[in-house]
Amino acid sequence: MSNLRIAITHGDTNGVGYEVILKTFADPAVLELCTPIVYGSPKAATFHRKQTGLQTNFNTVRTADEAVPGKLNLVSITDDEIKIDFGQATPDGGAAALLSLEQALADWREGKVDALLTAPICKSVIQSDAFHFPGHTEYIAERVGEGAKPLMILMDERMRVALVTTHLPIKDIAAAITQEAVVEKLRLFDASLRRDFGLSRPRIAVLSLNPHAGDNGLLGTEEGEVIVPAMEKAGEEGVHAFGPFAADGFFGSGAWTGYDGVLAMYHDQGLAPFKALGMGAGVNFTAGLPIVRTSPDHGTAFDIAGQGVADAASFRTALYTAIDICRARARFDEAHANPLPRLWRDRRE
Amino acid sequence: MSNLRIAITHGDTNGVGYEVILKTFADPAVLELCTPIVYGSPKAATFHRKQTGLQTNFNTVRTADEAVPGKLNLVSITDDEIKIDFGQATPDGGAAALLSLEQALADWREGKVDALLTAPICKSVIQSDAFHFPGHTEYIAERVGEGAKPLMILMDERMRVALVTTHLPIKDIAAAITQEAVVEKLRLFDASLRRDFGLSRPRIAVLSLNPHAGDNGLLGTEEGEVIVPAMEKAGEEGVHAFGPFAADGFFGSGAWTGYDGVLAMYHDQGLAPFKALGMGAGVNFTAGLPIVRTSPDHGTAFDIAGQGVADAASFRTALYTAIDICRARARFDEAHANPLPRLWRDRRE
Repeated sequence: MSNLRIAITHGDTNGVGYEVILKTFADPAVLELCTPIVYGSPKAATFHRKQTGLQTNFNTVRTADEAVPGKLNLVSITDDEIKIDFGQATPDGGAAALLSLEQALADWREGKVDALLTAPICKSVIQSDAFHFPGHTEYIAERVGEGAKPLMILMDERMRVALVTTHLPIKDIAAAITQEAVVEKLRLFDASLRRDFGLSRPRIAVLSLNPHAGDNGLLGTEEGEVIVPAMEKAGEEGVHAFGPFAADGFFGSGAWTGYDGVLAMYHDQGLAPFKALGMGAGVNFTAGLPIVRTSPDHGTAFDIAGQGVADAASFRTALYTAIDICRARARFDEAHANPLPRLWRDRRE
Repeated sequence: MSNLRIAITHGDTNGVGYEVILKTFADPAVLELCTPIVYGSPKAATFHRKQTGLQTNFNTVRTADEAVPGKLNLVSITDDEIKIDFGQATPDGGAAALLSLEQALADWREGKVDALLTAPICKSVIQSDAFHFPGHTEYIAERVGEGAKPLMILMDERMRVALVTTHLPIKDIAAAITQEAVVEKLRLFDASLRRDFGLSRPRIAVLSLNPHAGDNGLLGTEEGEVIVPAMEKAGEEGVHAFGPFAADGFFGSGAWTGYDGVLAMYHDQGLAPFKALGMGAGVNFTAGLPIVRTSPDHGTAFDIAGQGVADAASFRTALYTAIDICRARARFDEAHANPLPRLWRDRRE
């Protein structure tokens, strides 16, 4: 496990992707933790390196098979020149981001890499006939999910927040909060906390959809009609779910410290307080899929692209998280690989 | 101004209302700042005092006119006994809360008190034929607003968050975010920051409705179609509005420190991160009305009612805030009382 091969996409080439990659692997100790394989362009990488004044060296290889442990490997995704316009949303930046992601996923399908770490994309320019999904999470699930549903988890050292709905306009949220959806996300969250984080009896706090948890029906009925029944159903399957809690009080009172995970109903409800509380190194983890995929919790940061001032803490933590989760999964799978035959378990009782 | 008369409601009598009142006025220095007048029941107050082991003395008076400076005055709102069931939502607790509020508002209308500080109510038991509003804010606006619209502001020493929509189910939010509503709240917020907080050129950050600020229309169109036009319209009237910003990044990056106020589109979007960031002494201020009304940012706290362990910091800060705002309003009104006649102003140019 010391030589996990981590596929890394360069993201939008006009953003801070290369900068945080270069900063992360500037430390030789990080290269001992895994074998990184960046899907990118040697020319674009060199340009970013020069602009940001960073010294990290790439090891250019033709395919992932040639990646060398202890080096920052770079697989070329295109022979074409990628025009870099720092801080601009351009078709070139979007196309380069998509090519990188596609190549990384193709290699994952062939077993050439063990996990995926994605640098930020600019969603408006990556849209095309081939890519018409609201974000990385949904796209990756479609491409390599094998029918599994993804669960978006934002995490730092102290908290894991998962979302029932992710990239939806506010007007569509209430309709998407169905009993099936909540049960499914509770199942996925519970399974991930066990397998990906090694927790044996995870406690999940569930947030309410409406303000004041619906105030006994005065401010909405989904709590009683949808969320509580979903929690009961998941509870019958062994999921330990608590709540539903009003989001403002839950985060304000410090109640979140008592749970292994927090299930929010929608994007801003979970992520605004999470980031408000955060200490700068949040990581996005896509649970529920065969592939382990993490990413930093920031965007392309166009406003500071090419200046050398980007903070690589979140990207670095996303790398560590991918490694940790791969290892936890391996431990879990090994521990559960040879269960006692049912006959013997039944006899013991 | 040193002798502002502050009307104080006891809230739900099964909650922590009396406890935080008693704790706040246990300090004689606080009694020098204002003349408090609690609208309550001597028996209920005594019962709470005994249960919580607090020593603060009440000065029972027949009407607000008899209130004595330097004492914690108590006006009796009923001759009936109020049955106290700590931590329970009972009709008695709701009825007592409503009586207290009604009497305080009646006295405000007659000029007997200068401001209102409300202890928490339990919304489900206060509902009746007479009280069918989602919360204090809306009810007070209806009773003594004289047609003015209220603006709910949550604040602490570092931040002021106002809400475009307050107590609405999630499913109804998008439809309530109209250009008129956003312009109106921007106007109210700007006016309050000037008159109630003494700021001469307040800077207001506006949050987006949808995640990622709608991502250029991919995740919702209200930003471009409603919020930006509303900000431009308010801008023409002299309101300095910035954004719209995605809520998670705005709170996560510390961007909120650069603004005098934050306008959130809905309850949890503004309040969950506000409380997550908060240091425990948040205050709710109802702006936009002739009456100055504040309240603590916590609820009835039924789970710890009658135990003597409630934290009075938020209630105490709500008292200080009411006093500060009364004084700021007086200063503002005095400064703007005698404008130069238009003729003279025009000549100068």
